[in-house]
Amino acid sequence: MTDSLARELACIDCGTVHPLGYRLECEKCRGLLELRYDLDVLRARGPALLAGGGLWRYAPVLPIADPAHRVTLGEGGTPLLDCPRLAKVLGVRSLAVKFEGANPTGTVKDRSSATGVAAALQFGFTATSVVSSGNAGSSIAAYSARAGLRSLIFAYARASAPKLLHMAATTADLVLYEGVYDDLITHWDRLVESRLFFDCGASRNAYKHEGKKTIGYEIAEQSGWRPPDVVVAPVAVGETFIAAARGFREMRDAGWIPRVPRMVAAQATRANAISRAFRSGRPLEPLKIGYTVAEGLAAGNPGRKGEWVLRLLRDGRGAAGDAEDEQILEAQRTLARTEGIWAGPTGVATLAVLGKMLAAEELDPAQSYCAIVSETGLKTEAAPPSRAATAFDFDSLERLVEQRLARA
Amino acid sequence: MTDSLARELACIDCGTVHPLGYRLECEKCRGLLELRYDLDVLRARGPALLAGGGLWRYAPVLPIADPAHRVTLGEGGTPLLDCPRLAKVLGVRSLAVKFEGANPTGTVKDRSSATGVAAALQFGFTATSVVSSGNAGSSIAAYSARAGLRSLIFAYARASAPKLLHMAATTADLVLYEGVYDDLITHWDRLVESRLFFDCGASRNAYKHEGKKTIGYEIAEQSGWRPPDVVVAPVAVGETFIAAARGFREMRDAGWIPRVPRMVAAQATRANAISRAFRSGRPLEPLKIGYTVAEGLAAGNPGRKGEWVLRLLRDGRGAAGDAEDEQILEAQRTLARTEGIWAGPTGVATLAVLGKMLAAEELDPAQSYCAIVSETGLKTEAAPPSRAATAFDFDSLERLVEQRLARA
Repeated sequence: MTDSLARELACIDCGTVHPLGYRLECEKCRGLLELRYDLDVLRARGPALLAGGGLWRYAPVLPIADPAHRVTLGEGGTPLLDCPRLAKVLGVRSLAVKFEGANPTGTVKDRSSATGVAAALQFGFTATSVVSSGNAGSSIAAYSARAGLRSLIFAYARASAPKLLHMAATTADLVLYEGVYDDLITHWDRLVESRLFFDCGASRNAYKHEGKKTIGYEIAEQSGWRPPDVVVAPVAVGETFIAAARGFREMRDAGWIPRVPRMVAAQATRANAISRAFRSGRPLEPLKIGYTVAEGLAAGNPGRKGEWVLRLLRDGRGAAGDAEDEQILEAQRTLARTEGIWAGPTGVATLAVLGKMLAAEELDPAQSYCAIVSETGLKTEAAPPSRAATAFDFDSLERLVEQRLARA
Repeated sequence: MTDSLARELACIDCGTVHPLGYRLECEKCRGLLELRYDLDVLRARGPALLAGGGLWRYAPVLPIADPAHRVTLGEGGTPLLDCPRLAKVLGVRSLAVKFEGANPTGTVKDRSSATGVAAALQFGFTATSVVSSGNAGSSIAAYSARAGLRSLIFAYARASAPKLLHMAATTADLVLYEGVYDDLITHWDRLVESRLFFDCGASRNAYKHEGKKTIGYEIAEQSGWRPPDVVVAPVAVGETFIAAARGFREMRDAGWIPRVPRMVAAQATRANAISRAFRSGRPLEPLKIGYTVAEGLAAGNPGRKGEWVLRLLRDGRGAAGDAEDEQILEAQRTLARTEGIWAGPTGVATLAVLGKMLAAEELDPAQSYCAIVSETGLKTEAAPPSRAATAFDFDSLERLVEQRLARA
């Protein structure tokens, strides 16, 4: 087991440094906090520091000190799949998909759930809670069960049936809320102060957030520590985007990679507050939103993390775009048929945005791309195909096979 | 990239040895074939032969010679999860779950699909086909798409909605059949002779079958080459069971592990031809079966592989059991609540059978167990929980949280 190199929490706004501990924002200015590590050790030891597989391979750059708290369901270590057929369809030199559907509950959320629930153990909490459109809820419920903690899961009533079934199975306390994520999160965030439960939300908790950083580490390591030119990450509140960007910056500062990839933020057009602000050069304005097929991207008010994403985009020569629901569903079909990867609408929004921005010549087709596909397709709810079925004898079977394959 | 050490095909009935090549049964007696490897090299080099991650880490003991044919979606490398809470519930000393839901299409089928579709490429086929209750169909469709091959998928009309959606997304040619697996497979197996498509079925193809052997190798390697005393494997036709047993035998013969685990075959009571034959000591008799929630176990006539399973059980001091649908659904809930692992009914049949056999004192609670959980829960179709939802203000939210968590 490897030691954590976490050393302190720093405010991203005023720079004040705080000791490690249960703390959700800066005591001085209420700004968001980020974890800082011992860069000297990272620089001196290099990737030889890493041991084992999955998410906890990156334990030196995660903030969980005691190996006994490092809860796992086998998250991380997801495939980085080179996709030459899809690259051709999109007209780009090289494209890899980081397929997060291979995580235990089928989404990237498992990375932050692992460190979130581990932090709940570390700080002595006995219950967790989260407000979710569906994926975070089932993930936090699963990791809480695994750790022997209670969980109180607030989920969007319009979440897909597979997501609801999953949550109902893994928590004893599932509560469905009316309206969208934004309608509940402000009250819930305020209630976090009561310390009745550990904050497993995406708004503030730096310990939970940190697990997602491993996606950046994995992309780099799976690319032989030479990450692709551009990484496209989904943005709802911004957790995956910010964490991946932080991971790349940390690796560059430690000399593990030569440069950070350019980051592209991908949103659903129906929840595009960040993309809209970045593209127009104007301040972030919360949106009143409705349903989008990319359920996991349905946040109209990304709050302070949204501001952080904008800052990272503006400071880092990033880019942002959004895609309509129809374009997202088309990307889902194309990915399945060209590469055999079955991802959900939330997951393929990055590919829809990438395709759209390439078509509009906003991105350079000569660069190498990695798209984070955050969700398996198995959580998709849609009308199943007709169940009209046929009985076969040998002759009718042979005729059908010959006809179908002759069409090739 | 590592070389394949596959050397020949041997008939499991008459022992005749055949050269490697496209061959589905023994030319002499029509018996099933198994692959044989260069044991001297395995013995001399040991596990140091292995390189890389996932299924193709075990390429030396897989029959695909050319690395260019080794199609991948990131299968294998699934977690072996120690489950102390569930062990306590079942009253057993030690229990690990090999969670195959982490594979790209959410099931163990991806292991055999990888080598099956790779073999289709190796032998120059341009199309694949399979008869499936749902999981094999979506897996073969996905791997065929990934390899740029056509696929013709025959699926059970009563397969769950997530399975049907998945298959419809990944193949252009989905055909639903009336009746169960057994009603179609005899005709389809005969049609394989036409060579219109590559045989991706479970009846005969030793190349496809072989991918599943990696589950045994992973269990052994993840246990530090000291596998658990007992491995419980699901049995429909018997592919996973036979392949795991062959893997353990191969490792023992090569000196990689000290002894082979005892194998337990787990079936659904509604499709229990093998368990029934083994427990009664009588010959295998095909059953006419209907629906079971363990959709992937719905084979009433396991054919020659069923005989092979029986032989392995009888020669290897194995055991067999079956569980009713209600017991299987109960095991699904228990696994989710105690360990946070969300698996489908097909996947948890092993745990239901293990629990039942321990309760009946047919197995020794002092031994260490590994249960293969073959399927994610995300493919489960069941009535979703009520979507009745609540709107909250801060006060009503606070009241609800206090009430719920006070119940602890």
